[in-house]
Amino acid sequence: MGWKGLCREENPAAATDFRLCDRRASRDARVNLVLGIMSHAKPRPFTIDELRAYLIEIFPELWKRGDFRIEDLAPMAATLRLVHHPRHLRYGGTIAGPAMFALCDVALYVAILGELGRVAHAVTTNVSINFLRKPAPADLIGKARLIKLGKRLAVGEVALYSEGESDMVAHATGTYSIPARGDEPN
Amino acid sequence: MGWKGLCREENPAAATDFRLCDRRASRDARVNLVLGIMSHAKPRPFTIDELRAYLIEIFPELWKRGDFRIEDLAPMAATLRLVHHPRHLRYGGTIAGPAMFALCDVALYVAILGELGRVAHAVTTNVSINFLRKPAPADLIGKARLIKLGKRLAVGEVALYSEGESDMVAHATGTYSIPARGDEPN
Amino acid sequence: MGWKGLCREENPAAATDFRLCDRRASRDARVNLVLGIMSHAKPRPFTIDELRAYLIEIFPELWKRGDFRIEDLAPMAATLRLVHHPRHLRYGGTIAGPAMFALCDVALYVAILGELGRVAHAVTTNVSINFLRKPAPADLIGKARLIKLGKRLAVGEVALYSEGESDMVAHATGTYSIPARGDEPN
Amino acid sequence: MGWKGLCREENPAAATDFRLCDRRASRDARVNLVLGIMSHAKPRPFTIDELRAYLIEIFPELWKRGDFRIEDLAPMAATLRLVHHPRHLRYGGTIAGPAMFALCDVALYVAILGELGRVAHAVTTNVSINFLRKPAPADLIGKARLIKLGKRLAVGEVALYSEGESDMVAHATGTYSIPARGDEPN
Repeated sequence: MGWKGLCREENPAAATDFRLCDRRASRDARVNLVLGIMSHAKPRPFTIDELRAYLIEIFPELWKRGDFRIEDLAPMAATLRLVHHPRHLRYGGTIAGPAMFALCDVALYVAILGELGRVAHAVTTNVSINFLRKPAPADLIGKARLIKLGKRLAVGEVALYSEGESDMVAHATGTYSIPARGDEPN
Repeated sequence: MGWKGLCREENPAAATDFRLCDRRASRDARVNLVLGIMSHAKPRPFTIDELRAYLIEIFPELWKRGDFRIEDLAPMAATLRLVHHPRHLRYGGTIAGPAMFALCDVALYVAILGELGRVAHAVTTNVSINFLRKPAPADLIGKARLIKLGKRLAVGEVALYSEGESDMVAHATGTYSIPARGDEPN
Repeated sequence: MGWKGLCREENPAAATDFRLCDRRASRDARVNLVLGIMSHAKPRPFTIDELRAYLIEIFPELWKRGDFRIEDLAPMAATLRLVHHPRHLRYGGTIAGPAMFALCDVALYVAILGELGRVAHAVTTNVSINFLRKPAPADLIGKARLIKLGKRLAVGEVALYSEGESDMVAHATGTYSIPARGDEPN
Repeated sequence: MGWKGLCREENPAAATDFRLCDRRASRDARVNLVLGIMSHAKPRPFTIDELRAYLIEIFPELWKRGDFRIEDLAPMAATLRLVHHPRHLRYGGTIAGPAMFALCDVALYVAILGELGRVAHAVTTNVSINFLRKPAPADLIGKARLIKLGKRLAVGEVALYSEGESDMVAHATGTYSIPARGDEPN
């Protein structure tokens, strides 16, 4: 169990960290796991399993293949895995830029759905991605967190790692347009 | 007499319109194919056919499949086609973001190879892409031009269009690190 | 007859060159200044002088100082000048990044106002800027054009030049949120 | 024993949370201030005071005015303050985009100097900035951390906050070209 905030619980020094907002969100999430039962706190739109089922429903080609897997879902955050496959490789045995881009986009999209639920078809409007290091020929882990969730726009950042490595291999920020109900986004 | 300076030398007015130079560059490229023979202009590193063969040699998986095609090659510029295929589709019948990202990246990469020849393995360091409109379920055309070609970094922009349409569907800028010979880029 | 569609309507070939449309747009703008009177074309929201007055009204500190000047206004496009001043300099005698950023932002903002008129308070949501070359210690010219003008988002690109030079010194793309009337943007 | 590797060496679990490493880095920095004396750890190029003096030496106009202040310096990280001043305001009482851009650029630049010392004149090559919320009319705090420090390129991200607030008001990523000694960067 635990919402990602767990490791921070064990590290009270985290308060000095500039990611204050997330930390609070994580703590609130834990509080809500308890309070939710008693006080009818606002429920999360999806469990991980429900979100997995929803993604297969709306993007069957992408999600049935099993390349992408949701590893974790937390308030304003999601962790995704891109399963290593020769199809994602390019020259020199590293993972292609488009596959890394896809992981960033998917991770941010999942984080948004995790907040907004099934009514929202967010549309990517901008992604800026920095490729930092050659990824290892291994699974890629994408850790996304939202830094803004407005009525019309959501903005988030993603860090990519080769599994088992601690050096970031790519970093992206993305903006998503959130359509009003019944509205065409843009 | 170099290729890069040509459009400015012949068109002093070009300085007053930043989009003029490119257009002329394409025309000049054709003129120079003729003039080059007579006036000993600096030769281009590749003809289109040579560049196609080189890409199949270095990225066989990507280029043998035939998804991407070089439509045009000009000084500091390249036009690429992404052949329409259900594999690139997503929810709603439009072309997936990663496929559009790939077309941008490939088009800029080809434009750089078109200038630097086979010695250069440019590495993408940053791409910022704006998704502007839903692309039609048709071939996508990517028009790349380089706006800087330095010793260490190349920067370019790409505009994507659905074939036969005049509204831009996406726009990207990209930065590439150009390794010194025998050097690891970064 | 609208302004925006004009260059495409009259120039079907424009679809084959994404930079053609802008160039024509500038010429068409001049033609339409004449034709507009005779053919009841949809009027532009502002003349240059009206837009100058509006900017002084809404941003007096910025526009009274005279650092920025509107050089040209055309459909989906604007050209701005940043007057050279030691205040914009930094180490080595070149123009500071923030001053170049400001010119990009202002040029895109002016291009949007030129389309939408005085009702619109567009808000910058994202700017991605590439610094390409050291600018000369001279006026900087920023040529902005919009590549999307949706109901909620406008996207444009800007190229910066040192006056009298033909090499681009910086290039930016920007996204602006357009509030509905009476609405808080974002 | 180097500084950069420290948090990973001592915390193998760091790979599971991409925000863990930074936090520890700050704490480790304090620990190392003590340990460094005893264990001959590689010295940092600058203390905060030395870096302040160096910045006044190389950019006197910018740093003598006192608008920017270094709040904290840590391995791969720096915290800067932009002192609130009406000069940074724009329409509606909020802080202008160019002032926020400047704070991002300065914070990343300081973080790089904090690693590389006085030999390095890093040059900004790309900044992508997302404006998330209206800043309060108060000091702005910029928290920068480097996510890559290569031989030729450094990449970092910055989060901006209004003093005393926990919601991020802007976020930027930036790339810097690091010249070889005696070399012209680009």
